[in-house]
Amino acid sequence: MRTSQLYLSTLKEAPSEAELLSHKLMLRAGLIKKLGSGLYTWMPLGLRVLRKVEAVVREEMNKAGAQELLMPAVQPAELWQETGRWAVFGPQMLKIKDRHERDFCFGPTHEEVITDIARSELRSYKQLPVNFYQIQTKFRDEIRPRFGVMRAREFVMKDAYSFHANFESLQATYDVMYKTYSNVFTRLGLKFRAVAADTGAIGGSGSHEFHVLADAGEDLLAYCPDSEYAANVELAEALAPATPRGAASEAMRDVDTPKQTLCEDVAKLLGVGIEKTVKACALMTVDGQFVLALLRGDHNLNEVKVSKLDGLGDFRFATDEEIRAHLNCPPGFIGPVGVAANVKVIADRTVAAMNDFICGANKPKFHLAGVNFGRDLPEPAVVADIRNVVAGDPSPDGKGKLELCRGIEVGHIFQLRTKYSEAMNCLFVNESNQQQVMEMGCYGIGVSRIVGAAIEQNYDERGIIWTKGIAPFTIAIVGVGYHKSEAVKAAADQLYAELQAAGVEVLLDDRNERPGVMFADMELIGIPHRITIGDKALAEGMVEYVARAGGEMQKLPLDGLAAKVQQLVS
Amino acid sequence: MRTSQLYLSTLKEAPSEAELLSHKLMLRAGLIKKLGSGLYTWMPLGLRVLRKVEAVVREEMNKAGAQELLMPAVQPAELWQETGRWAVFGPQMLKIKDRHERDFCFGPTHEEVITDIARSELRSYKQLPVNFYQIQTKFRDEIRPRFGVMRAREFVMKDAYSFHANFESLQATYDVMYKTYSNVFTRLGLKFRAVAADTGAIGGSGSHEFHVLADAGEDLLAYCPDSEYAANVELAEALAPATPRGAASEAMRDVDTPKQTLCEDVAKLLGVGIEKTVKACALMTVDGQFVLALLRGDHNLNEVKVSKLDGLGDFRFATDEEIRAHLNCPPGFIGPVGVAANVKVIADRTVAAMNDFICGANKPKFHLAGVNFGRDLPEPAVVADIRNVVAGDPSPDGKGKLELCRGIEVGHIFQLRTKYSEAMNCLFVNESNQQQVMEMGCYGIGVSRIVGAAIEQNYDERGIIWTKGIAPFTIAIVGVGYHKSEAVKAAADQLYAELQAAGVEVLLDDRNERPGVMFADMELIGIPHRITIGDKALAEGMVEYVARAGGEMQKLPLDGLAAKVQQLVS
Repeated sequence: MRTSQLYLSTLKEAPSEAELLSHKLMLRAGLIKKLGSGLYTWMPLGLRVLRKVEAVVREEMNKAGAQELLMPAVQPAELWQETGRWAVFGPQMLKIKDRHERDFCFGPTHEEVITDIARSELRSYKQLPVNFYQIQTKFRDEIRPRFGVMRAREFVMKDAYSFHANFESLQATYDVMYKTYSNVFTRLGLKFRAVAADTGAIGGSGSHEFHVLADAGEDLLAYCPDSEYAANVELAEALAPATPRGAASEAMRDVDTPKQTLCEDVAKLLGVGIEKTVKACALMTVDGQFVLALLRGDHNLNEVKVSKLDGLGDFRFATDEEIRAHLNCPPGFIGPVGVAANVKVIADRTVAAMNDFICGANKPKFHLAGVNFGRDLPEPAVVADIRNVVAGDPSPDGKGKLELCRGIEVGHIFQLRTKYSEAMNCLFVNESNQQQVMEMGCYGIGVSRIVGAAIEQNYDERGIIWTKGIAPFTIAIVGVGYHKSEAVKAAADQLYAELQAAGVEVLLDDRNERPGVMFADMELIGIPHRITIGDKALAEGMVEYVARAGGEMQKLPLDGLAAKVQQLVS
Repeated sequence: MRTSQLYLSTLKEAPSEAELLSHKLMLRAGLIKKLGSGLYTWMPLGLRVLRKVEAVVREEMNKAGAQELLMPAVQPAELWQETGRWAVFGPQMLKIKDRHERDFCFGPTHEEVITDIARSELRSYKQLPVNFYQIQTKFRDEIRPRFGVMRAREFVMKDAYSFHANFESLQATYDVMYKTYSNVFTRLGLKFRAVAADTGAIGGSGSHEFHVLADAGEDLLAYCPDSEYAANVELAEALAPATPRGAASEAMRDVDTPKQTLCEDVAKLLGVGIEKTVKACALMTVDGQFVLALLRGDHNLNEVKVSKLDGLGDFRFATDEEIRAHLNCPPGFIGPVGVAANVKVIADRTVAAMNDFICGANKPKFHLAGVNFGRDLPEPAVVADIRNVVAGDPSPDGKGKLELCRGIEVGHIFQLRTKYSEAMNCLFVNESNQQQVMEMGCYGIGVSRIVGAAIEQNYDERGIIWTKGIAPFTIAIVGVGYHKSEAVKAAADQLYAELQAAGVEVLLDDRNERPGVMFADMELIGIPHRITIGDKALAEGMVEYVARAGGEMQKLPLDGLAAKVQQLVS
C-alpha cells in the first residue's frame, strides 16, 4: 500500500487523557480514536493490526479443531436467569429493554447462549467433544474505563466453549487449548507466561491465565526464566530452604530497641542483615484462636496461603487490643518466645530453618537476639508456606530461580465442569443410553487488548516497535525526494512492486513530506523494517536499510535488492 | 474439510415459525439457529457463507480505494441529538442507559459517528475525498422481525461514508460505488438490478437501490431484460404510445350496463378487449378542485406520479358524496363526457391516444361506447404519465420492453449532500482558505441479508443451490462405503488431497452414513459440484460427477481426475 492511499493521521502529542504508554502511542499513531468513555474507533491502520491478531487466533483455533460460529451480541435475559447470573453479574452487564419492554443485555460473555445451543443441538455422546468459538465485539460496562483498548467497555474477544461426555475429554481439550494459546502468543512474537489461576469461588478445577509480560501489567507474577514455570505471586509456592537449620551458636539475649519496631530498623541498629530477623503477625481465627505467624523480616505474609491452613479459613488480623491481651505487649515488639499455651505459633518454612535469629521480646522497646527453636521456645506447632515468593527464590519446578515481573492478562482458559450445563439442563445420552450432564470448558482471548499489551512490551522513545506477527506492514520504503527525483521514484516504485509481488506487506511512503517527517511517522507507527532511497546513495547504486528494533544502518546494493530485503524481513 | 470435522446439523423439516423459503432452507441446512425474535446464531457452515459474502464486499471496496475502519457498536446519544435523529429515529433504535444513566444506542447506522470522526480528522481539502467503510453488526428493533436473516433485528451490514470538498467529487465517488456494487453482486453470481430510488423526504439528489431479483421480494420492480434499466414500479415512467390517436370511426352511444361497474365486466359484457375501456378516478386537491383522472381500464393509478402534478400535491380520493355532488351519478358509472366546467379532466398518456373508447356515462347503469376526444368531449386539460407501468410497456431508455419482477433490497447508495455535515458542523478549509461544509455520500450493503436473498434466487425442491461466489465449499466428495472399501477410501482421500493442494475448497463427506443421507445433505446445503466415488464405478476406473444446478450425471476417469475436476468447477 502507498501512504497516499492510507488514511494516516499521526500526532506529535497524545491527548492528555491517556495515562498508559500504549494508550498514548495508539492515539499518537492514529490507530484508534476515542468516541466516548471506553469506546474507540479502530482507524484503518489500527484495524489492520487488530485483524492480524484476529487472523493468528483464528488460524490456531481452526488448527486445534475448534469451529467458528457467530452468536448474537444481544442476548435475552431469560437464559441468564436460568443460571442466576442475571441477578449477580452486576453493573458491568449492559442491560437493555427492547421496544416490547423485554429484557436483554449486550453480551459480556456467552456461556448461557452457547449452552442453550448445545442443549438443543448435541444429543448424543457421538457428537462430543465439540469446541465452538467466535471472535466478537463484547461490552462490559467498566466503572472506570481506562488505558485505551486495554480496559475499554467495548472490545473484541475470542471466546470458545467446549462440550464433553466426560472429564477426561475436557482435560484433553483443555490441554490442546493450553498449547493453542501458547502457539498464538508465540506466533504473535510476544513474551508471555501461562499462569496457574486460583479457580476460587467459581469452582471447577483447572484454570490458567496467559499474561503478556510488561511493566505496566496489573498483575505481579513469579516466573522462572529457565523453564515454563509461572504463577501469580499470590499463588507461587515458596519452597523450604535447601540447607537445614544450623545449630544454635549464640546465647539468647535482650537487645535494646527503643524506637525500632520494624525488622529492617532493628537489623540496621544491630548491624546485621535483615535475613537474621523474624517478624510475628498476630492473627485471629474464626474460632477465636490467637495465632502468631512467623516470617523472615524481609518476607511478606501471603493471606491466600494462610487461609488454606487448617482452622485458618476466613482468619483476620488481630486488633491491637487482642495483641495486648494475649502477649501483654504492644505491637512492634511481639515475638514467639515465652508465649502462653493458648497462642498458636505457625512458622514459615524459611523461619523454621533459621537459627540464632532476632525477634520481638514481648517487652516494649526490646527484641531478643540469638533465639533458637527447641532451646528458647518450642518447635513451631505448624510449619508451612505462608509467604509471598521473592526474586531469587528457587523455582517450585526445581529448574532455576524465580524472578518477578508484571503481566497483562490476555487469555484465560477454564475447566467449567458442569456449572452451566447443570443449571441449564444441558444433557446428552451416553453410551449406556443414559442421560448425563455435559462437561464444559471455556477459553477466552482479549483480541483487542493484545494490541495494547504488545505495545507495552515493545516500544521506545520514538514509538511502537511491532513484532513480525502483528505489524500492519512488514517494511516501509521511504523515498527521499520521491516527488523530485526520477531516479528515486523509479527505484522506490520498482522495489515496491517487486516486494508486493513476492507477498511482502510493504508500505511505500510516497507523501510529499520532509524526510524527517516520514522517518518519524514510520518509526512512530512501528513498521519493523525500513528501506530509505535517496539520490546520494543511489548514485553509488545503494540504498539504506535499518531495522526498527535497533541496530546499525546498512547499505544494500540496488542489484538484487528485493531478494536481499526478503531475506532480511523473514 | 471433512464432514467429520465440520459441525453439520441438517433437519428434514423446518421449524413451523419459518414462512419464507430461504428461512426454511437456512434452518434445515443448519446455517443459522434462532436465539430469540430476530436474533440468529450463524452456525459454522452458515458463517462460512457469510464470510464469503463479506470477503467479496471487502475486496471490492478496497479495490475502489475505500478504507476499512471499525466504529463502536454502542453510540452516545449526544451525537444523535446534534442531528435531531435521537428524537425522530423511532422505536427501531435500541436505546440503552449505561451504569451512570447516560444515554446510548446500539448503532442502527453510523452517519453521526463517522461525521464526528470526519469533523475532527479532516481539516483540509487536501485530505479529501475519503471513503471510510466498516463491516459490522447492527441492530434495528423491527416491530415484527421475520424471514430469518432477511429481516432480523441483529444483522451484519457494510456501511461506507464518503466526504468531499464539492458535489462533483461526491458524484465521482458515487459513480465508483455504483460500479463497485455492480461488481460485488456480479461476483456473487446474483441476478440483480440497480434501481433509481425516490430520495423523497431525506433530500439529496441521487440514490439507487440494488435489488436481488427473486419472487419473494417485497418490492415490485420494472426492468428491461435488454438493458440495465430498472426502477421501482412506482417510479418507472410509462411512455406515451408510439402510434398516435386514430380517427373517430364510431358514433357515441349509450350502452346498457345494469350491474357492470368495473371495466373488465363492461368489456366482457360488450365482447370487446379491456384496452377499449377507460376508467375515471375521482380525486380532490387540497384546494378543493374536483379532478377526474382517466386511465385505460387495465391500468392502475400511480399516486406518486399524480402527486407530482401541478396542484395535485397531497391530493386525496374523492368521497362518494363528492362524486355525486359533482357528477350527479354514483361511483361505478362516472366518466369524463359532459362534465361541468369546474371538473378538471387529466388523461393518462395512453388514454390520450385512444379513440372510439368506452367509459362511464355519468348515468346509473349506463356506459358510453364510441367516445372520442375533441368530438364528444374536450381534449383533456392535462395529459401526463399517471399510471403504473405494466409488463410489455416500452422501456423508458428505448431499448426494449419492460418486464415486472420482485426484488429484495440488498444495497443502497445515497448522495447525502450536506444533511449531516451541516447539522454537525463538519467543515474543511478549501483552496481559498475558507471554511466550507463537506459533501457526503453513504453506501450500505446488507451483508447477512444477501445470504437469504441468494437462496431465494437459487434453490430447488432438494435445497439450496449456491452460486460459485457464495458457496461454503466448491465441491463435495461423497465416498459410498468410505468406511468399508479400502479402494473407495483411497480414491476419495487422494482426490481430496489433490484438490485441497490445488486450492479448491472441497468437503469430503467421510461420515458413516447411508449414501442417500449423504447425497441429500450435500444437496440441501447446496454444494455446487459433487463427485461420487463407489466400488462399482471404481472397478471400471471411473467416478461420477454431477452439478448441483442440474444436468446429467457424467462418468469421469480416475486418471487425471483432479485436473479434470478443476476444469469443471472453474
